[in-house]
Amino acid sequence: MPCTGTYVKLLIINGPNLNLLGKREPEIYGARTFEEYLIELQERFTQHEIVYFQSNVEGEIIDALQGAECPVVLNAGGYTHTSVAIRDAVAAIAQPVVEVHISSLAGREEFRHTSLIAPVCKGSIMGFGLDGYRLAIDALI
Amino acid sequence: MPCTGTYVKLLIINGPNLNLLGKREPEIYGARTFEEYLIELQERFTQHEIVYFQSNVEGEIIDALQGAECPVVLNAGGYTHTSVAIRDAVAAIAQPVVEVHISSLAGREEFRHTSLIAPVCKGSIMGFGLDGYRLAIDALI
Amino acid sequence: MPCTGTYVKLLIINGPNLNLLGKREPEIYGARTFEEYLIELQERFTQHEIVYFQSNVEGEIIDALQGAECPVVLNAGGYTHTSVAIRDAVAAIAQPVVEVHISSLAGREEFRHTSLIAPVCKGSIMGFGLDGYRLAIDALI
Amino acid sequence: MPCTGTYVKLLIINGPNLNLLGKREPEIYGARTFEEYLIELQERFTQHEIVYFQSNVEGEIIDALQGAECPVVLNAGGYTHTSVAIRDAVAAIAQPVVEVHISSLAGREEFRHTSLIAPVCKGSIMGFGLDGYRLAIDALI
Amino acid sequence: MPCTGTYVKLLIINGPNLNLLGKREPEIYGARTFEEYLIELQERFTQHEIVYFQSNVEGEIIDALQGAECPVVLNAGGYTHTSVAIRDAVAAIAQPVVEVHISSLAGREEFRHTSLIAPVCKGSIMGFGLDGYRLAIDALI
Amino acid sequence: MPCTGTYVKLLIINGPNLNLLGKREPEIYGARTFEEYLIELQERFTQHEIVYFQSNVEGEIIDALQGAECPVVLNAGGYTHTSVAIRDAVAAIAQPVVEVHISSLAGREEFRHTSLIAPVCKGSIMGFGLDGYRLAIDALI
Amino acid sequence: MPCTGTYVKLLIINGPNLNLLGKREPEIYGARTFEEYLIELQERFTQHEIVYFQSNVEGEIIDALQGAECPVVLNAGGYTHTSVAIRDAVAAIAQPVVEVHISSLAGREEFRHTSLIAPVCKGSIMGFGLDGYRLAIDALI
Amino acid sequence: MPCTGTYVKLLIINGPNLNLLGKREPEIYGARTFEEYLIELQERFTQHEIVYFQSNVEGEIIDALQGAECPVVLNAGGYTHTSVAIRDAVAAIAQPVVEVHISSLAGREEFRHTSLIAPVCKGSIMGFGLDGYRLAIDALI
Amino acid sequence: MPCTGTYVKLLIINGPNLNLLGKREPEIYGARTFEEYLIELQERFTQHEIVYFQSNVEGEIIDALQGAECPVVLNAGGYTHTSVAIRDAVAAIAQPVVEVHISSLAGREEFRHTSLIAPVCKGSIMGFGLDGYRLAIDALI
Amino acid sequence: MPCTGTYVKLLIINGPNLNLLGKREPEIYGARTFEEYLIELQERFTQHEIVYFQSNVEGEIIDALQGAECPVVLNAGGYTHTSVAIRDAVAAIAQPVVEVHISSLAGREEFRHTSLIAPVCKGSIMGFGLDGYRLAIDALI
Amino acid sequence: MPCTGTYVKLLIINGPNLNLLGKREPEIYGARTFEEYLIELQERFTQHEIVYFQSNVEGEIIDALQGAECPVVLNAGGYTHTSVAIRDAVAAIAQPVVEVHISSLAGREEFRHTSLIAPVCKGSIMGFGLDGYRLAIDALI
Amino acid sequence: MPCTGTYVKLLIINGPNLNLLGKREPEIYGARTFEEYLIELQERFTQHEIVYFQSNVEGEIIDALQGAECPVVLNAGGYTHTSVAIRDAVAAIAQPVVEVHISSLAGREEFRHTSLIAPVCKGSIMGFGLDGYRLAIDALI
Repeated sequence: MPCTGTYVKLLIINGPNLNLLGKREPEIYGARTFEEYLIELQERFTQHEIVYFQSNVEGEIIDALQGAECPVVLNAGGYTHTSVAIRDAVAAIAQPVVEVHISSLAGREEFRHTSLIAPVCKGSIMGFGLDGYRLAIDALI
Repeated sequence: MPCTGTYVKLLIINGPNLNLLGKREPEIYGARTFEEYLIELQERFTQHEIVYFQSNVEGEIIDALQGAECPVVLNAGGYTHTSVAIRDAVAAIAQPVVEVHISSLAGREEFRHTSLIAPVCKGSIMGFGLDGYRLAIDALI
Repeated sequence: MPCTGTYVKLLIINGPNLNLLGKREPEIYGARTFEEYLIELQERFTQHEIVYFQSNVEGEIIDALQGAECPVVLNAGGYTHTSVAIRDAVAAIAQPVVEVHISSLAGREEFRHTSLIAPVCKGSIMGFGLDGYRLAIDALI
Repeated sequence: MPCTGTYVKLLIINGPNLNLLGKREPEIYGARTFEEYLIELQERFTQHEIVYFQSNVEGEIIDALQGAECPVVLNAGGYTHTSVAIRDAVAAIAQPVVEVHISSLAGREEFRHTSLIAPVCKGSIMGFGLDGYRLAIDALI
Repeated sequence: MPCTGTYVKLLIINGPNLNLLGKREPEIYGARTFEEYLIELQERFTQHEIVYFQSNVEGEIIDALQGAECPVVLNAGGYTHTSVAIRDAVAAIAQPVVEVHISSLAGREEFRHTSLIAPVCKGSIMGFGLDGYRLAIDALI
Repeated sequence: MPCTGTYVKLLIINGPNLNLLGKREPEIYGARTFEEYLIELQERFTQHEIVYFQSNVEGEIIDALQGAECPVVLNAGGYTHTSVAIRDAVAAIAQPVVEVHISSLAGREEFRHTSLIAPVCKGSIMGFGLDGYRLAIDALI
Repeated sequence: MPCTGTYVKLLIINGPNLNLLGKREPEIYGARTFEEYLIELQERFTQHEIVYFQSNVEGEIIDALQGAECPVVLNAGGYTHTSVAIRDAVAAIAQPVVEVHISSLAGREEFRHTSLIAPVCKGSIMGFGLDGYRLAIDALI
Repeated sequence: MPCTGTYVKLLIINGPNLNLLGKREPEIYGARTFEEYLIELQERFTQHEIVYFQSNVEGEIIDALQGAECPVVLNAGGYTHTSVAIRDAVAAIAQPVVEVHISSLAGREEFRHTSLIAPVCKGSIMGFGLDGYRLAIDALI
Repeated sequence: MPCTGTYVKLLIINGPNLNLLGKREPEIYGARTFEEYLIELQERFTQHEIVYFQSNVEGEIIDALQGAECPVVLNAGGYTHTSVAIRDAVAAIAQPVVEVHISSLAGREEFRHTSLIAPVCKGSIMGFGLDGYRLAIDALI
Repeated sequence: MPCTGTYVKLLIINGPNLNLLGKREPEIYGARTFEEYLIELQERFTQHEIVYFQSNVEGEIIDALQGAECPVVLNAGGYTHTSVAIRDAVAAIAQPVVEVHISSLAGREEFRHTSLIAPVCKGSIMGFGLDGYRLAIDALI
Repeated sequence: MPCTGTYVKLLIINGPNLNLLGKREPEIYGARTFEEYLIELQERFTQHEIVYFQSNVEGEIIDALQGAECPVVLNAGGYTHTSVAIRDAVAAIAQPVVEVHISSLAGREEFRHTSLIAPVCKGSIMGFGLDGYRLAIDALI
Repeated sequence: MPCTGTYVKLLIINGPNLNLLGKREPEIYGARTFEEYLIELQERFTQHEIVYFQSNVEGEIIDALQGAECPVVLNAGGYTHTSVAIRDAVAAIAQPVVEVHISSLAGREEFRHTSLIAPVCKGSIMGFGLDGYRLAIDALI
């Protein structure tokens, strides 16, 4: 995922099902799509250019991580708990990666308690809803 | 996976390696391919149009689920036991999903005993061979 | 449980507490008793005679299985998860046995996730409510 | 187990081997049988009629629970740790059930540490010997 | 299970599904029923009278153990691995109990590896087929 | 915690967060504080003097147990599941200790299922709300 | 821990050994004490007054949480993994609590992977060093 | 361990510490050494010659098993629970092997509950003291 | 992955992140890319044509396996430990598959100790760095 | 716990319930209090001054460790198995710490088998009764 | 195991029961003994002298490893899964050790899945039958 | 291992690989062999004669323990974690045995955390390097 362009500074990678934000179950997740949120986020961080990538395919997320030429905010969704391969990609690249989760994983099903990715990230932020992305960018810059 | 067309009513999604049915190990799985079985299935349910999708890629199965505009019969194959992401997709969409397995998972290796997908499906059918797909459609309509 | 009579073809065995269906918590399980449902079931399968047996006693279920002279639809209720003895009975008899559960076990308490009986049954159907019995008979005939 | 009669108010259900109380190992459990203790108990609670039921058969205990028309004091003995079916019966009936154990389960073998029944009871009392039945009745009335 | 009569000396208790011996799967278990084997056994031990009891009901096996007035040979079948209640009965009675299993439990499924009953028996014999009963009687007398 | 005074006979020790009873979440725990409940309890047991001690500090609970000169009713709150040190204190002192819990631990999170303290107490009472303290005193006297 | 004063808005609670920051192992944790960092933090958030509390005593942390009259940033240190009591305190109070950890727990010893506190916090931030406190305050206001 | 000689028919192999029988703790194990017991055993089975081998060295027990030219009675002592290598030797040789244990393993420490050797033996006998060897020979001939 | 061409004899499939070899962390993995190593490998095995396929996408690896018309050397990278689907593909195809890992998995994190793929491969080679590919080819031809 | 004074050289820290030594259960632990033993210990090591600290409060033990200005002998009692916080304190300070336990932990309950503190201590001594303190001092000087 | 002689370059150490190769179960392992295979191996590697050592005794394998003055090919047989001592020997010596197994351990019983030795070896080769030894030597030279 | 001679009083038994002390990895374990250390130890304890025995063979260590006629200092090396047989030998003999380990086992690999031998020893000393042997002798005399 090359972060090309004059102001490109930050890459947000969202994993599986996060493309449904704002489109399904608005009473839970709100009516705002991630694309709408991104505009707001970009307006807040005027000194940076935010590139956004979403995929439901594990291997495409790995491709994006390998190609990252700037710091990364990563919400790997359901792959967080099962993907040794994404973990290896995060560990292999030079760019710092911050892990974000919209809800608190510790309060959900047992199989969501373990993050394979956390140990190789610079840091982790979870439970703050979409605001977690803002905090992650704040931590990176 | 949009279920377009006048009569489209049901979507069958098959996961990894199920494209080999009837092509490999015919002494075990029989000599009929899933495509041949589909024709028979379609003839049985004349009031519906059955759309078929198969992929070995976890993320493409998620894409298909997200795009489903009709009830789904899902055999996630080996992803049944490992994919939190497919589970999340099933849970997120409005269409009912019925889980099918050709053999009885409980009688196979330990790692096949747990289905991450079952708790978010409308129901599960396993052990009846290809006939399970017919039963699943029967349960949906 | 001899399946005597001219048309007797199928035996339904229900385990502990399933005699309460329709009598307790109607807001959850509906107001129909299993006996009422049986009439409907019998009307649907006019070519067969359906014999029904229910017991709260583990050993009586084993007796019924051992005596079965026709295919069996078995909902062993709470014994599903704890009874090696019922499993052994299913494995020992020649008649095919199909396992039915009204709700999806995978979505309930941890101790309900394992079915000792599934590996020795012809197939398993769960999560479709009372309709599961119809599907099971459909699969057997 | 219908709680018939003018003053019938409470049902005590004892599970397997509790019929041996006072007959075996008197140096440990005392020389008083449960029947003798019952007389004393009845004399203490003059406003109530106490009905007593004991069985070594799991299914008969379920029958008794299903038929209970008054609050229940239940000591399920060895079935406490293994019977999903008794748990389901307790959960299904409308009458409150209080669990009693003569000794403290936590101080015995590992397999006695888990009570499948406790989560669906109104409360649990253990470790006080036969006096636990009195406390349980006291808690119910 | 009173061991009445002039020569009554030994009680054999068989648990669930052992009544099928010689009637099902003769290629595996042989064509001889347990009743036929019993005659042979009685002829061998002319100084003793052998009483035989079989039941598929856990609680009836407990009843038989509680009523035993002579040494017991016990094959609890599938209850061996799940019945705390039978264990408690064996531990509570004064008569010595020897555990017999026809096959070697250690070589079968994981859930058959643990015998809840063995720790409270005088001894255990397994793997010798029907001959195990003879060895058990030999050990008791 | 010396139980000084003419009528002092019983010591109630409450562990962490139990000082919030009646002050937080009244819709769940009721509007009555433990202090108010204590007055009622004292009025019921006129032959005894009830001393009350509460602390959020594990070590102070141990101090109180070590200093107890009368029977103790102990609700160790969250320390019930984690404190080997409180267990050791209960085991070391001569006074009998009865364990009380307001709710049924078996029905809550997994980590609350094990009580380290139960095996060394005279008995345990749980699930009866504040009424459990009355039952515990009743059991002690 | 009353958050008194005109501008008091935020309470930071640090658990065991966090008083050693900047005093021990400066090559790892830096030479800045938490008190020095606090000054910087206060200067950044001029609209708020930051109150700081540190204790090595589990029960005193509970006292502080119970007394909190403003949002809380909590780093429970080693108690994070073992304290059901602190968890209960966080769950019981009305003020929002954000969990902070200086390093990524997932990358350390096995026993640090589970946070008992996370499920009841508003959110969790870890791995960013002292900067995590700033992000936590940012998330709260 | 060649079973040479005219009447050689049976080989008894005893593992570690069984050479201490009758020499240590006679109040527990009796004052009879295994050598003395062997004489009695030989007198009982006059049609056979019993060869005896004991070693504390795991590999020498394997050597003895590999060299066995007659049926074997094996008490592997402490190696029973840890030796994959002895298991492999029993599985590799053509002679039948019967496993004997003096006490009931199921009633001792957790680590003695699993026998690695049982699944590859013809049968197992335990809990009958030295008499178990007689029963084992009886089972073999 | 059809192995077309006159001399095509062997297919090497590399999984996620193995495309980074020689490009990242050269101090660890050396400065040689896998493509450079392939040339050397091809020069060594002049009688064969080596086809190379790499993908970060689990499903594309399955596609490649299904399409293999020659023996396969497979390094599934991080999917080794999590992919039931790749295992099923290896088991389903007729071509022999040899598993290669550059480092010794047993010496790394716990979650890398289990290979789901090994049981269905012809053999496994690990710990020899890139040289493992040569050994694998050597084993296949 | 400043080790002030001319000859102060060694600090002994005792955790919960160790203040009861010699006061409770003298038939087990002897009639000598730790204070009496200390006098003897001081007389033996005339070149050193031994400072003694005991507390039942986990946090006060941490305070004492943090303040230690001399080598420490630590018996953390019941906190040994549960306190990540004490472990962190031992790891953080520069003074060497030797762990002492009066009895052998490995021979007691399962939950006492793990010492969280041992991995960060200079060494551990257990099973020698009070003499273990002398050995610990001997090891430190 | 000194590797003396002019051309001595490689030491093969075989563990328990591997001396039976070619002598037992020829339909499985072939009719060739390891000694016969060694001759073939020696003929292939004419530049080296291969020394062979086999023992069923764990300690003698350790002796051989300690005395090794050349690279080692080690098949520890059943000790692979249980011997911390052999692991320590491999770790302690300077010579490189390659682990070989004839069959794939991952496809056999659960207790064969873990190799204690693999983490300290240079590499592991398994599943290729006797050919694994050739590959191991190839990897070493 | 008879402790013959006029002054013989103490037996030191060292298990596998401890014969390499001082010969391998001197930068870690020092350049002093155990034999050199023994001389120093003997000079310190002039009132006793120290006998030394080392073996890599588990069974020879058992032989030595069985033959011990004086107190024993035992470092069983890698057998500490796996040998039920050595544990049984320690438990069977009358002489007191003190367990020594050079490093702290709790700080090493998971499989070294459990000592099977500790529960039957008089006491355990670990983490003090070679000095642990001196402390052990000190504890024994």
